[in-house]
Amino acid sequence: MKLVLGTMERITSRSNERIKSFLKLSSSSKERREQNLYAIEGARLCFDALISGEEIKEFYYTLHAEEKFKKQVDSLREKASASFVITEDVASKMSSTPSPQGLFCVARHRQNSLAFESKLCYIALDGIQDPSNLGAMARTAEALGIGGLILYNCCDIFNQKSLRASMGAFFRLPVIMTDDLPLLLRNRAIEGVLTVAAVPDRDSEDFSSLDFSQGAITVIGNEGNGVSQPVIEACMKKASIPMKGRAESLNAAAAGAIVMWEMMK
Amino acid sequence: MKLVLGTMERITSRSNERIKSFLKLSSSSKERREQNLYAIEGARLCFDALISGEEIKEFYYTLHAEEKFKKQVDSLREKASASFVITEDVASKMSSTPSPQGLFCVARHRQNSLAFESKLCYIALDGIQDPSNLGAMARTAEALGIGGLILYNCCDIFNQKSLRASMGAFFRLPVIMTDDLPLLLRNRAIEGVLTVAAVPDRDSEDFSSLDFSQGAITVIGNEGNGVSQPVIEACMKKASIPMKGRAESLNAAAAGAIVMWEMMK
Repeated sequence: MKLVLGTMERITSRSNERIKSFLKLSSSSKERREQNLYAIEGARLCFDALISGEEIKEFYYTLHAEEKFKKQVDSLREKASASFVITEDVASKMSSTPSPQGLFCVARHRQNSLAFESKLCYIALDGIQDPSNLGAMARTAEALGIGGLILYNCCDIFNQKSLRASMGAFFRLPVIMTDDLPLLLRNRAIEGVLTVAAVPDRDSEDFSSLDFSQGAITVIGNEGNGVSQPVIEACMKKASIPMKGRAESLNAAAAGAIVMWEMMK
Repeated sequence: MKLVLGTMERITSRSNERIKSFLKLSSSSKERREQNLYAIEGARLCFDALISGEEIKEFYYTLHAEEKFKKQVDSLREKASASFVITEDVASKMSSTPSPQGLFCVARHRQNSLAFESKLCYIALDGIQDPSNLGAMARTAEALGIGGLILYNCCDIFNQKSLRASMGAFFRLPVIMTDDLPLLLRNRAIEGVLTVAAVPDRDSEDFSSLDFSQGAITVIGNEGNGVSQPVIEACMKKASIPMKGRAESLNAAAAGAIVMWEMMK
C-alpha cells in the first residue's frame, strides 16, 4: 500500500480544481452534457459502474475507504485513468450524503444505445421530473427484463438521486433519448409494435386485457399531468390500471412497476 | 374577511410557543406519540385531512395562502378548533419544503382501526424504514383497494415525507400497528387466511400462481434485509416476483405495487 500511495496524488484542499470540477459535474446536468462525463459516489455505485463497463476517468478515495472497501478500491484504482487520495474533509465537501463512504468517481457512459428488437417490450417515459422516480423505474425495468427505456422530456439519468435509486441500472439498461416521441411511436406502430399510453381514465382498456406478445412500447407520463396529449394521440391504445380506491392515481413509479409487470408476464 | 381577521390571533414571531410546539410535532415521532397529534402542511394535505374526517386542532395560514387557496382556507378555518394568521417569515420557519404554500395544521388522527374482514386482502409491512416508501405503499394500497395495512417495526406514518408520499391515504386507510406480527399471522392463518412472505428467492412460489380469493395477508419486508426470519417462519407460504434482469431485487415500493396488484386482480 505504501508503494502505491507514493505514486498517488494527494488532494487535501477543498478548493482544489479537480474537486471543483467534480462538484460541477455532480450538480449540473448542463456540465455533464457538455463534458460527456458524470460524477458518482459510494462503494456500491462506483464498483457497479466499473464492473458494468463504464469508463472510469478519475477515482477519489479516502484512506478510511481504502481500509473498509479494500476490494472495490483496489479494482477501481487499477482501472481508473487517474486516482487520487483525498482527506475526510475533502470527501465531505464532495459528498451529497450526510455520511459519505469516501469513494467518488468521474465516469463516462458506455453507450448502451437501444436497438429495437421485435417482440421485446419497452417503456417510454414522458416528462418524468423526479430523479428518484426515474431511477426507480430503471431499476424495475432491469429487474423485470424490459428491453430498454425511451426518455422524452425527462430529468437527467446521471443526477445523483437518479443513479442511486436506479441501483446502477442506467449503466446497463439500453436507453435512448428522443426529442420526438410521437414520431418514434408512429414509426414503431408501422412495424407492427403495439404502442400504449398509460392513462388514469376509467373508460380506457384494462392493461391485463392487452396482448404484449408481439412487442410493445408503453408510455408512462409525468407525475402530475400524465402522458402529454400529442403522445396519447400517437399511441394505438390507451390503457389503465383499474383502481378501486379513492386516490386519483398511483404514483408514477408504482404505476410503472405494475405496467412493466403486466407487459413481461 | 376583515371581520374574521379581527377575531383571529396573529402570530408574527418565529419563537412563538405555538410555533415551537408545531415544529416539535413536525420533527419528532416521540412527540407525536405522546401528544397523539401530528403536524401537516400544504393546501392539498391539510384539506385532504379535513374532508377525510381528521380532527383539525389548529390551523395556521398566511394572508397570501388565504388569497390563493380561498376555498380550502375557508373550510379549514370553519372546522378548526383554533385558527391563526401567520407571517410569511413564520411560515418559512414552520415549513419543511423550500417553497411553502403557507398552510399548516395540527391534527388528531381519527381511528380507522383495522377490523379483519374475511376474503379481503391486507398488506403487512415488516421494518419499512424509508418514510417515502411507506407513504407510497399506502397510496398504492388505497388506489388498488387493499383492505388495510399492518405495520410492524416501521417508521412513523405521520412523518412529513410519509404523509406527503401517501397523498393522504393514511387519513382513510385502515391501519394497525402490531408488536407481534408472527403471532398475528399465525392467528389469521387459523381463520383460513392465506399468509405469504414476499421474498426474492428464485426457488419460492410465483406470486401469480397463488389464490388470494379467500383473503390473504402478504408481508413486504425491509428495504435492505427483506422480511425478517421469524415473520417468514410464521407465514404459510413464501412467494416471489420472478425477475429476469440483473438487479438483485425490486425496491420495496415497486415490489409492493406488483404484489398488491396480483392480490387484487
